[in-house]
Order: sequence, then structure tokens, then C-alpha cells
Amino acid sequence: MTAAHSATLTTREECVAADASDPLAHYRDKFFIPADTIYLDGNSLGLMPKSAPERARLVIEQEWAQDHIGSWNKHGWFDRPVAIGAKIAQLLGGERGECVATDTTSINVFKALSSAIELQRATDPARKVIISERENFPTDLYITEGLISLLDRGYELRLIDSTAELETALGDDVAVALLTHVNYRTGEMWDVTAATAQVHTAGALVIWDLCHSAGAVPITLDASGADFAVGCTYKYLNGGPGSPAFIWVAEQHLRTATQPLSGWWGHAKPFDMALNYAAGDGARRFLVGTQPIISLSTMEEGLDIALSVDPAELRAKSLALTSLFIRLVESRLSHHPLTLITPRDDAARGSHVSFRHPEGYAVMQALIAHGVVGDYREPEVLRFGITPLYVGFADVWDTVETLRCVLDEELWRTPEFQQRGAVT
Amino acid sequence: MTAAHSATLTTREECVAADASDPLAHYRDKFFIPADTIYLDGNSLGLMPKSAPERARLVIEQEWAQDHIGSWNKHGWFDRPVAIGAKIAQLLGGERGECVATDTTSINVFKALSSAIELQRATDPARKVIISERENFPTDLYITEGLISLLDRGYELRLIDSTAELETALGDDVAVALLTHVNYRTGEMWDVTAATAQVHTAGALVIWDLCHSAGAVPITLDASGADFAVGCTYKYLNGGPGSPAFIWVAEQHLRTATQPLSGWWGHAKPFDMALNYAAGDGARRFLVGTQPIISLSTMEEGLDIALSVDPAELRAKSLALTSLFIRLVESRLSHHPLTLITPRDDAARGSHVSFRHPEGYAVMQALIAHGVVGDYREPEVLRFGITPLYVGFADVWDTVETLRCVLDEELWRTPEFQQRGAVT
Repeated sequence: MTAAHSATLTTREECVAADASDPLAHYRDKFFIPADTIYLDGNSLGLMPKSAPERARLVIEQEWAQDHIGSWNKHGWFDRPVAIGAKIAQLLGGERGECVATDTTSINVFKALSSAIELQRATDPARKVIISERENFPTDLYITEGLISLLDRGYELRLIDSTAELETALGDDVAVALLTHVNYRTGEMWDVTAATAQVHTAGALVIWDLCHSAGAVPITLDASGADFAVGCTYKYLNGGPGSPAFIWVAEQHLRTATQPLSGWWGHAKPFDMALNYAAGDGARRFLVGTQPIISLSTMEEGLDIALSVDPAELRAKSLALTSLFIRLVESRLSHHPLTLITPRDDAARGSHVSFRHPEGYAVMQALIAHGVVGDYREPEVLRFGITPLYVGFADVWDTVETLRCVLDEELWRTPEFQQRGAVT
Repeated sequence: MTAAHSATLTTREECVAADASDPLAHYRDKFFIPADTIYLDGNSLGLMPKSAPERARLVIEQEWAQDHIGSWNKHGWFDRPVAIGAKIAQLLGGERGECVATDTTSINVFKALSSAIELQRATDPARKVIISERENFPTDLYITEGLISLLDRGYELRLIDSTAELETALGDDVAVALLTHVNYRTGEMWDVTAATAQVHTAGALVIWDLCHSAGAVPITLDASGADFAVGCTYKYLNGGPGSPAFIWVAEQHLRTATQPLSGWWGHAKPFDMALNYAAGDGARRFLVGTQPIISLSTMEEGLDIALSVDPAELRAKSLALTSLFIRLVESRLSHHPLTLITPRDDAARGSHVSFRHPEGYAVMQALIAHGVVGDYREPEVLRFGITPLYVGFADVWDTVETLRCVLDEELWRTPEFQQRGAVT
């Protein structure tokens, strides 16, 4: 099923038939799907792989309880951030570079940005501008703000409002561009290869934030020439709540990149207990301290599933689903004030779709109450994550029908749906 | 049983009787003790509380699988770092200050040190020296080195070689002292209250690293006047491998302290997706990114056990065990080249005991092979962690007998015990 084929689906029966012939349909069985739920929030927290509980049980009851401290070697706990990182590098087409699974995305942004700034400082210290996107997920901007303030050496943040503005923003004062592959709100996707080339032509380095793309769209870090990448594993990689993030360093920087969170896990010989820091090899030096082994190990279950999928097939299904969703909403719900904020162009769209609606918050609460779990993002945005591993064509049909019911019958007017709690 | 009483124990039978009358003996049942093992490495990785598997199962199979994204609110995932942090603050006598459970000790050292430096810079920018201990656990020194290099503003590290040297090292150029309550190798313990007063008299701030003391010795952060504290939860708090660390901020700094890893979890309103960072209240601003919920939640099981113990009773038992161990080794094994490197003075000793032996590495491997799990630290150090919650008097007796056997019969000469693998 491709995006073109999905254009032919006009009834629920045809969607059911499309699911029946979907070559990726069997992946759905690898996940626990909550009862009576269409789960369109895998771009926030992916569902649980059915193998996760057994993996956690093994780590806790065998490795921790029975083999305790010996597990650091016997069960490979020490090398797990590097071993899992190697799998992530493979998934992201970045095997010439190196990756470690560790810490949080925010902390890894700090490491990558510090590292890129230091690399530039060594060759062109006058470059003091960091480019990022006004619509970026805020933590990337907050971390940049924190680092700039800490350095107190005249660095500044230059924000662009669209992908088209990158070219003009790239002056010879730019040190680094911190760009997010797929936008968390709109689902807009950069052309990583083209943007990386633009940044390099301008003499700057690029850090890609892959939080909303890793596991959902094909990524080819080596071929794209990227310098650094960071991202999380609890969204499309289904690693579990808050599972450790990753940081990837390109081959050309493996020997020279350093980072200031120089904890003992990044030391060349951590158990020599030497007085001074000596950075370990490659991406290992981007490790800092002891990692949460239960969360880290459990995460590998979702990652292994992602690694077993043909990325082209995954992308084709993702585009078929998102284009079907856009077409059905726009054709069947045109009498409601829904505004698509996600690109229609397949090449510029990740794997989630967002519509604005003036009562967006209440509409999403009503949808969730009726079994369709998407999420809400300020301002007014209904966000629907389409995880192609476990979302099907009939799910998309049913989502649109539920949304039609919520809007036609104004179910969102129910007072409880309008009370704002903490937003998820 | 106190240290004084333990001086009366001269036979295994008397040790067994001491266990029988130990008011803390029942705590042993709360932990899974590996078969045929005397576990003296709880100062590296605490044993598994028997309730941990069920807690992990609940988080994974109920909260993640069934309630997925809704668990951030429904099951309190969002507030868990703060809620668990409040329990840690209570354990550490620091309820006037605030604590969050998050990230790793190394990263929390970075935050605390950045924060303390910035506080000093606002009032006395000429203070550019950071005092720490040459024998500190290296990551504290490595992180300091990384921060100094990143700041590039003339900060320097001044190392002291003993607690006695603190006084003279505290010139009017000192900004911060980064001290570790109990030394990871020797078990030597600072008088936190006295040292904090010394540091404050000199106009500096103090950060206490509690990795080797939290859960093992009484701590009174508020009463001691400490400024910051950090520590881990996987040693004496039995939180599980790599369970998240903590950072505590004193009441007097809660409104003014900032830190540069300004990720969205530390933002005052993380879901407003505002363009600029605005620090959240109190210790919440020391959060950075999404925490590993499975590891974090499971950790609470060990913490709750620690909270249920009378700290004075725990300390009395710890001292009774460590003084018994020292006395038995020195009286029964005086014909071997074992050198105590742990203070004999109860007030200056944490809850582990270390002896040097020229063949320390091989001796420890032989001990482990014979069911006594301590660990080895460079150079030549046999380290024995005495977790009073699950180590008993007969365990100490049997440990000394096993050590006697290993040494008298030179079991450590077995070639496999001399081959160095990665050290745990």
C-alpha cells in the first residue's frame, strides 16, 4: 500500500481490505494494544512491545537479583550503552559514525552543541551564531540558551521561521545549526541531505534532532553528511517511558569531538581511577555516568523490532496512512473549522498529522474519551501520531468517523472536556 | 548491638546469637539474598528488594501498557522525580531544602557546581578556586575539570590530601568546596557539620557528594547548613542498577540557584511550549529531560525500606559490624600482610572497610569464588561494604574465616584469579 494506492480507499470495507493485504500488518501483534483504543500517540510514548515485560523481569530477577554486581561484566551492562548505540547507528544509516544510548535528549543536545562549538572555535573562533528554529521543540532552544549563558562569550541564537529561511540565515558568523528533522507540532520534515549541504557550504556544522523521526522515516546520517544527531527512543522506537536517549557523532569528528560533561563513564580507563580525565574512544566519550540499566535494557526490545523492518516499506505505509487521514478529514469534515498544519507534500511530512481547531483542547479530550488517543499541543493543535508498525487503515477510517461524531454532535461541549489538567 | 558490645564477640556462636537479638534482623527478609553468598558489595550495587519485581511489573504492564501516555498524569510519572526527591530529602534530614531524583551523580555534580559558581560570581567574582579531594571518586574531579575548561575564565581546582588540609586550603580565593562525605576507597567520613562551618567561615559554598553515605549513615543536611548535595540511589539505597541519582538544594538557595542544563523539565510551565526558558520553582529547576520511569519507579522500593529504618539503630549496627570486622581480621589474620586503610575511629568511618594486600586483586577474586562478594579497587585494595540492612554478625565472622582460608592456603595463587578482566 502506497500513498497513491491509499487515494483509492473510499469505504471502511476497503480500509479493512487494505489492512488484510498490508505486508507490515503482523507487526501489530508484537505490541500490546490497549482494549477499545485507537492509539495515535506513539509519537509521544510508543506502545509496549509484548516482549518488554519478560526482558525487564530477566534484568531484575536474574541479572540484578542473582548475579548482582557481576552483571556489569557477565550480562554486558557496562557495554550496553555502546552496544545499543551501535544498533541505533545501524537504524539511522550512521554506521561510519558512532552512537551511544544514554541520558536524555536535552542533555545530549548540550553535549552535541558544546562539542560542535568547540570544534568550530578551534578553526574559526569568530563564528558565534547558533541557528535553530523558532518552532523547534522548546527544550532544544532552552538548552542552547543555557549553554550560551554559561559560556558568556558572545554566542547568540538566531531563529529561523521556516526551512526556506535557512539559506539566508547562514552567514559566515554561523558556528552551528541545531535543526529538528520532523517538527513536533506540524510534522514538517527537513530534507536532511540538502540542509546539511547548505550548512556545510556556509562553513557551519549541523546537529540533527531526530526525536520525531527515528523509527518512523528513513534516515541516512552517513550519506547525508550530518555532523551530530540526538534523539529519543520512547516515541517511534517504543522503548518505554523515558527510556534513555541517544547521541550520534559522525566519523569525521570521532577523534576530535569532546564534550564538557566529562564523567567517568566517558573516561578511557574508568577503573584506573586516574586523577585526570582522558577521553575514551569515539562516541564512548559522550557517556557521563551510570545508566539506568532496567530502562535501558527494556528499551532494546522496541529497538530490535524497529531494526527488523524494511525502512522503505515502513515509509510507504506511513505515507499511505497519513495521506489517507488528511484526505478523509478534509473530504468528510469540511463543514468544521479544521485547518491542516502538516505539509501535504509527502517529501515534507513525517509520520504525524496535525489540525488546528478553535476548540482543539476540548475536542481532543472528547476524542480520547471515545477511544481515539491523540494529543493536544498549544495552540489549538490536534496531533495524531501514525505509528505504521501498529496503526492500520481501518484505524484511520474509524478515527475520522469518531472525530466526525465528536464535531457533528458537539460532544466536546461537555464541561469535563474543557477543564484543563496537566496536558499530556 | 553497638560497637562496644560487638567487642565481646569472640566465637561464631556468639555472632549467631547477636544476629538473633538484632532488632534490624528482619530487614534482611525484605531483600533477595543470592544463594551461598555473603554480599559485601552493597556499597557498589545494593541487593534487590523483594518488592522490586512487582513494582516494575506494575509500571510496565499496567501503567505503560494499559494506560500509556495517560500515566504521566494518572500514575504521577511527571511528578515522580519531585515526589521521590521529597522522600530523599526526608531521609537526608533536608526537608527545609528540596531534592529531585534525576539523571546521574556526575551530571548532578555538574549542575551543583555550575550553580554554586554562579551564586558566588554574583557576589564575589574574584573567587575562582574549587576545592576538592585528591582521593575523591574521580568522576567528581573529571566533571570539575570539564566545567573549568568549558568556562575558560580562570577557574582552578585545588586538591587537598586529607580532611586536615581543608582549613589551610580555604583562602579568600575559594568559591566552592566539593567534598565527598564517605570516601569510596578508604571509607573515611567527614564531619559534615564541622567542615561545612569551616567552608562557610571562609566565605565559600559546599557541595556534599553522598554516594557512599546515603542510606548507610545518619545525614542531617539542614542542620549541618550544607548548600548542595548529590548522590546515587543504587548503593545503600538499593534502587537497582543505575537507578537515577539525586540533587538537593538548601533552602537558602532555592530561589536564587540556577543551572545551565536548562531543559524543558526544569521549566516553570513545560507544556506552554514558550520560546524562552523560565526556571521552575525550587529544586524542580534542576530537572532537565524525561526520566527513565521504569528505573525511577523501581528505585522507590529500596528507598521506602531505607525510610522505614531508625537511622540511629542503623548506624549502631553498622559500627558494630565494621568494628567487629576490623578486630577479627587484625586478630585472626595478623600473620598476613593486610593493612587497614579505613579509620578505626567510629566517628570517622562510613559503612565499608578496606584493607590493602599486595595481591589484592587475586585475593578478592578468590574470595568471590568462595562466596564472599566484596570488590577490588586500585591500588591493592580489598573493599568490603557492610550494608547493615542485610549483613549480619555471622556473615562478618564467616567472611573473616573465608579470607583466612584464602590467605593461609594461598588460594589466590590459582592462575584464573590473577587474570584481570574488567573490574567490577
